[in-house]
Amino acid sequence: MSEPKANELMEKIVSLCKRRGFVYPSSEIYGGIQGFWDYGPLGAELKRNVKELWWTTMTRMRDDVVGLEATIIMHPQIWKASGHVDTFSDPMCDCLLTKKRFRADQVEAQSGVVYHYSGAKDTASGKQLLDPFAVLLGVGKPPESARKTAAQFYQQRGLQNVELLGERTEKVENSQRFNPDNGAQLTEPRPFNLMFKTYVGPVADEENVAYLRPETAQAIFAQFKNVLETSRQKVPFGIAQVGKAFRNEVTPRNFTFRSREFEQMELEFFIKPDEVVEAITGGVAKPSGPGHPGEPQANWGWQLWHQYWVEERIKFYEGIGLPRTTLEEYWQKPEELAHYARATVDILVKFPFGTQELEGIAARSDFDLSQHERCSGKSMGVFDEELRTAWSKLDDAKKAELSKRYYEARFQYLAKSAVPAEKAEKEAKEDAEGLAKGQYIPHVIEPSAGVDRLILALIANAYSEVTSTDEKGKAETRVVMRFHPRISPVKVGVFPLLKNKPELVAKAKEVFSALRSQMVAFYDETGAIGRRYARQDEAGTPFCVTIDFETLGEKPELLNTVTVRHRDDGRQERIAIAELPDWLLARVG
Amino acid sequence: MSEPKANELMEKIVSLCKRRGFVYPSSEIYGGIQGFWDYGPLGAELKRNVKELWWTTMTRMRDDVVGLEATIIMHPQIWKASGHVDTFSDPMCDCLLTKKRFRADQVEAQSGVVYHYSGAKDTASGKQLLDPFAVLLGVGKPPESARKTAAQFYQQRGLQNVELLGERTEKVENSQRFNPDNGAQLTEPRPFNLMFKTYVGPVADEENVAYLRPETAQAIFAQFKNVLETSRQKVPFGIAQVGKAFRNEVTPRNFTFRSREFEQMELEFFIKPDEVVEAITGGVAKPSGPGHPGEPQANWGWQLWHQYWVEERIKFYEGIGLPRTTLEEYWQKPEELAHYARATVDILVKFPFGTQELEGIAARSDFDLSQHERCSGKSMGVFDEELRTAWSKLDDAKKAELSKRYYEARFQYLAKSAVPAEKAEKEAKEDAEGLAKGQYIPHVIEPSAGVDRLILALIANAYSEVTSTDEKGKAETRVVMRFHPRISPVKVGVFPLLKNKPELVAKAKEVFSALRSQMVAFYDETGAIGRRYARQDEAGTPFCVTIDFETLGEKPELLNTVTVRHRDDGRQERIAIAELPDWLLARVG
Repeated sequence: MSEPKANELMEKIVSLCKRRGFVYPSSEIYGGIQGFWDYGPLGAELKRNVKELWWTTMTRMRDDVVGLEATIIMHPQIWKASGHVDTFSDPMCDCLLTKKRFRADQVEAQSGVVYHYSGAKDTASGKQLLDPFAVLLGVGKPPESARKTAAQFYQQRGLQNVELLGERTEKVENSQRFNPDNGAQLTEPRPFNLMFKTYVGPVADEENVAYLRPETAQAIFAQFKNVLETSRQKVPFGIAQVGKAFRNEVTPRNFTFRSREFEQMELEFFIKPDEVVEAITGGVAKPSGPGHPGEPQANWGWQLWHQYWVEERIKFYEGIGLPRTTLEEYWQKPEELAHYARATVDILVKFPFGTQELEGIAARSDFDLSQHERCSGKSMGVFDEELRTAWSKLDDAKKAELSKRYYEARFQYLAKSAVPAEKAEKEAKEDAEGLAKGQYIPHVIEPSAGVDRLILALIANAYSEVTSTDEKGKAETRVVMRFHPRISPVKVGVFPLLKNKPELVAKAKEVFSALRSQMVAFYDETGAIGRRYARQDEAGTPFCVTIDFETLGEKPELLNTVTVRHRDDGRQERIAIAELPDWLLARVG
Repeated sequence: MSEPKANELMEKIVSLCKRRGFVYPSSEIYGGIQGFWDYGPLGAELKRNVKELWWTTMTRMRDDVVGLEATIIMHPQIWKASGHVDTFSDPMCDCLLTKKRFRADQVEAQSGVVYHYSGAKDTASGKQLLDPFAVLLGVGKPPESARKTAAQFYQQRGLQNVELLGERTEKVENSQRFNPDNGAQLTEPRPFNLMFKTYVGPVADEENVAYLRPETAQAIFAQFKNVLETSRQKVPFGIAQVGKAFRNEVTPRNFTFRSREFEQMELEFFIKPDEVVEAITGGVAKPSGPGHPGEPQANWGWQLWHQYWVEERIKFYEGIGLPRTTLEEYWQKPEELAHYARATVDILVKFPFGTQELEGIAARSDFDLSQHERCSGKSMGVFDEELRTAWSKLDDAKKAELSKRYYEARFQYLAKSAVPAEKAEKEAKEDAEGLAKGQYIPHVIEPSAGVDRLILALIANAYSEVTSTDEKGKAETRVVMRFHPRISPVKVGVFPLLKNKPELVAKAKEVFSALRSQMVAFYDETGAIGRRYARQDEAGTPFCVTIDFETLGEKPELLNTVTVRHRDDGRQERIAIAELPDWLLARVG
C-alpha cells in the first residue's frame, strides 16, 4: 500500500468523492457556490449511518439523555444572549482603491516603502481634499508607481488634475495594512459577523432581523426548561441534537472541512454545581488519573463529568473506525479558554492537510443558562428536593463555606456580564440563598462534534490504494475504502457468478431480497467478478456474496452456501445462506 | 370515546404536544417567533421514525432510487431557472398611513362610503400636495373621522395646517383596498417573494444574494447528471431527498401545518418520454382502471408511472397508520395545473381545521431539467443505447410520427419559456433529431410530502380520549395516542410491579437493557402501575411490559414470563422473556 503525499492525497479524495458519489460541489452546473457541498448517494448513506449511530449512542442507549429537534431560525435575542451578535466575527478590511475585502489577519504580510500622502489638490479648480492615503511599494520600485496609485484614489473622490500633497516615506516590514495586489492602503479592520442574516415576515427592517443558527447548542439552552418539565429527567441529564448550522466563513477551505453550511451533533449535559454535589454527598470526587472514570456517580463534580464525556466520545470514534492511535487529545491552555469555560478538550485527528479538530468537549459552567435567564427574564434554575433536604442537615460552617463558594462563582459571572457591582452582589447573594431552598442553575458539559469533518476524517482514514500485478506483469492500482462495517454506505454486495445463467441470477436475487430487508445491500451482475469486487471496494462495502454453481448444489455438501469475500484482505469463506443474515448483522450492526 | 369539536380538539392537541414534549413553540422564553416550532424528545423520535421509514421505503428497499443530501443554500441561478425568483410570491400592500403590511388577497372585505381627496394645502405656508388619498368609513359614521384620518396622511408628508382638497364620496361593497383597522387606503398590491434572502461572503450586495431553498426538489434536478454518472442507474430511476425548506409565509397558521421552516421528503422519479417508450417497446401501455398498476413495466408511459406513484404513496401512509379511508385523492383540474404539469394528484387528509394537502404527486414533464439545461448551458439529456438501437429498426412513418410528437412537445416548452419562435423551432428540431442518436431529456414524476404536516396528521389521527369511572363513581378522561407501533416514539415501557422489591427491579432492568439495544424502550418504576400505563398511553407507547412476582417464579409455570399490556384495548397477555424481543420486533418493525 503506497502512502500518497498530503496534497496529492487530498486531490485523490476529492476526485474519488465526486466519481463515486460521496460528495459533489453544490450547484456545480452553475459553477458551484463556494463553501457548499452536496452528499451523493454513497455520501448520504455514510452520513446517515454516522448520525444514526451518534443518536443511538447518545440518546436511545442512555437513560439520561433525550433528543431535541429545533429550528434553524430562532428568535434573534437568543444570539444576543449567547454573545454571537456582538462577538462572533472576523476582522475585515477593504482596499481603499478597489473595495476588495480581506480578512485582516489573513492579508499576506509585505515589506517595503510606504508612500504617505496627506491629501491632494485639483490644479484646475483649486479644490482640496485632505483625506490621507498611503501606498506600499516593494523595495526598489519607482516612486512614480506609488504616485499613480495615489492619484487614482483622489480621482475617485472627485479631483481631476491631481497634485499630491505632503508626500513622505516610511520603511515597513511584514505589514498587513496594504492590498497585496496593488499596494493600496486598507481600511481599519472592522468586525464582520459570521452569522447569515435574513428577515422574517413581510417587512425587511431591523425589527425583523433573524439569523441562521451558527451552532445547534443554543436551541438546547433555550428549550432547557420545556424539556426538563416534559421529559421526567432530573439533573444530571442531557439534551442531544443533530442539525444544520451556518457560518458565513470568509475563506471556506479544505473541501468539506470548513464549509459555510454544515451539520453538528451536539450534546448539552447538565450537571449539578460542585457546591450542590458537596452538599448532597459530602464531598466532590476528584479524577484519580487518566482514562475512563467508569459509571457516573452521585459525587462527581464537573471535572469527572468532563473526563467522562471526553472518554465516552473517544470510545464512540473508536467504534466507527478511528482508533485511539489516530486521535489526539488537546487540552486548551488557560489563556485559550473562553472566559466562562473551566476546561476544554479538543479531539484532533490527522487530515491530509494537517491535524485538526474533530470535536470539542467543553465544561461551560452555568454561563449559557445564566445568560438566557438574564436576557429572557425567565428562570433557568431547577428545584432539587435532595439538595433542600441535605442542606438542612449541614452544619453552619459547611453551609457558610458552600454558600460563599457559590456566591463567588455567581458574582464573578455577573460582574463579567457587566452587571453593576451592587446589583451583582445582591443577585449573587440571592442565588446563594437559593441553595437552602434546593435551587440552583445547572452547569453544563458540551461535547460538540462536526458531522462533515467527521465524514471527511472517516473517508481520509478509509482511503487506501492497493497495487496488484496481473499475469502479463501489468501493475494496476485501485482504491479500497476501508470503512468500519458499521458506517459503510453499503453493507453487502450480492452477485450471481454469471449473468447469463438464470438459475444463478434467480438464486442471487432471492438472497439479495432477503438481505435487503435487514441492511443496505447492492445487487450487481455486470462484468467480471473481479471488477464487481473492485467496484464494491471503492464504495467501501465490507462484504461481497457470490452465488455460484456450488450454491446450486454442484458439490452437494455446498448446496445453499455462498462465498463471502472480505474487503480488507480478500479472504473468502463459505457460509450457509440460512446463516448469512445473522452472520452479516453481527459484523455490520 | 368522545369526539371533541374541531377547534377544541386543536387546542387539546397543541396543549398535549407541549405538555408531553412533542412540539414546543420555538424560542418560547423570548416570546416565540411566529411560524417556527421545535420538536421535543417525543416529537423528535416520532419525526425520526417517519423520516427513516420514508427513506427506507423509497431508497434502501428499491433498486431504482438513490439518495441525495444537498445544501439548503445553493447558487441563486437555481431559483431563477426554477421560476421561484420571478413568480414565487404573494401580493402584498401597505397601509398608506401606518405602513402596516397586508396580504392583498387576505384583507378583510369592507363596505361603506369612501372619502376621496385629490390633495391638500397648508393654510399657513400655502404649500400644496397633490397626492390622492382615500378613507373608507362604515355606513353612518361622521365624515369628520375621515377628514381627520386624511389630515394625518398629509401631515405625515410635511403639511402643518391641512386644508383637504377635492373631497368626493363613493359607496363600495366588499372592498379589500382599505386598512380594516383605520379605514386608510392601501397601496397597490406588489409581489412579495416568499424566499428568505441572505448574502454569502463578506459583501452584502446583489452579486452575493442567496436564498434559503423553498423546496428540496431543485437540488435534485441540479445534481441529476452527477447522480446519473456516479450511481450506475439508468432511466427510469429516482433520486430521493429529505431536508429542511423555508418559506417566509405572510400568515403562518394552523400550528405546524403552515410554518416558515419545515421539512420535506421529495422524490424525483425520472422516466422516458412517451415517444421513447413507444420507440423501444412498440407502444405505451394505458391505465386500465383505478388502483395500483403492479410492478413497473418497460412499456409504461408517464400516466402509468404517475398512477403507480400515487398508489405507492398511499400504501406508505397506510403502513404508518393513515388508512385509505382517512385519505382523499384530489385530481387537480386542468385550470389548476401548473403550465408544465400533465397531471397532479393531491393526497388530502382531515385535520381538525379542515381537509388539507399532505402530499402532491405531480407529472412535471421535462420542464425542470429543460429549465436547468437552458439556464446553466449544461446538457441535462441522457444517452440511451436501447433507444438508438430501437430507433434504427423503426419504419420511416413511425420515425416521422414520433419525431413530430417529440418536436411539438419541445417546441411548446421552448415557446412558453419565451424563446423566440425561430430559435425554438431550430432547437426543438435538434432535440427531435436527438432521438435517433439515443438522446432525450427525461420526464419526471414528483411525489412531494411535507414532514411536519404529516406528523401533525399522525398526531391528530392518533389522538383519542378514554373516559373511565373509578370505584367511587368518579369519571376520569385521559388521552391515548394510538400511533401505529412502527412510528411510536417509544416502542415498549418496562416496569417492575413494585419499586421497593430489589428482585423485581433487577429483573426489570435486565429485561429493559436487553430490549433497549433493539428498540426505543422506556423504564419506569415510579407510581402505581395504572399511572405508569396512563403515562405511556399518552406518549403513544404500544406495549408495556410488567415484571411481577410470577416472573420471579411465584407460580413456577410462569417463571421468566412477563405481562404485556396492549395500549389500544388494555388487553394483557403473558409472554416468555426469551421470546419478548422477537415478539415485539414483529409488531413494531
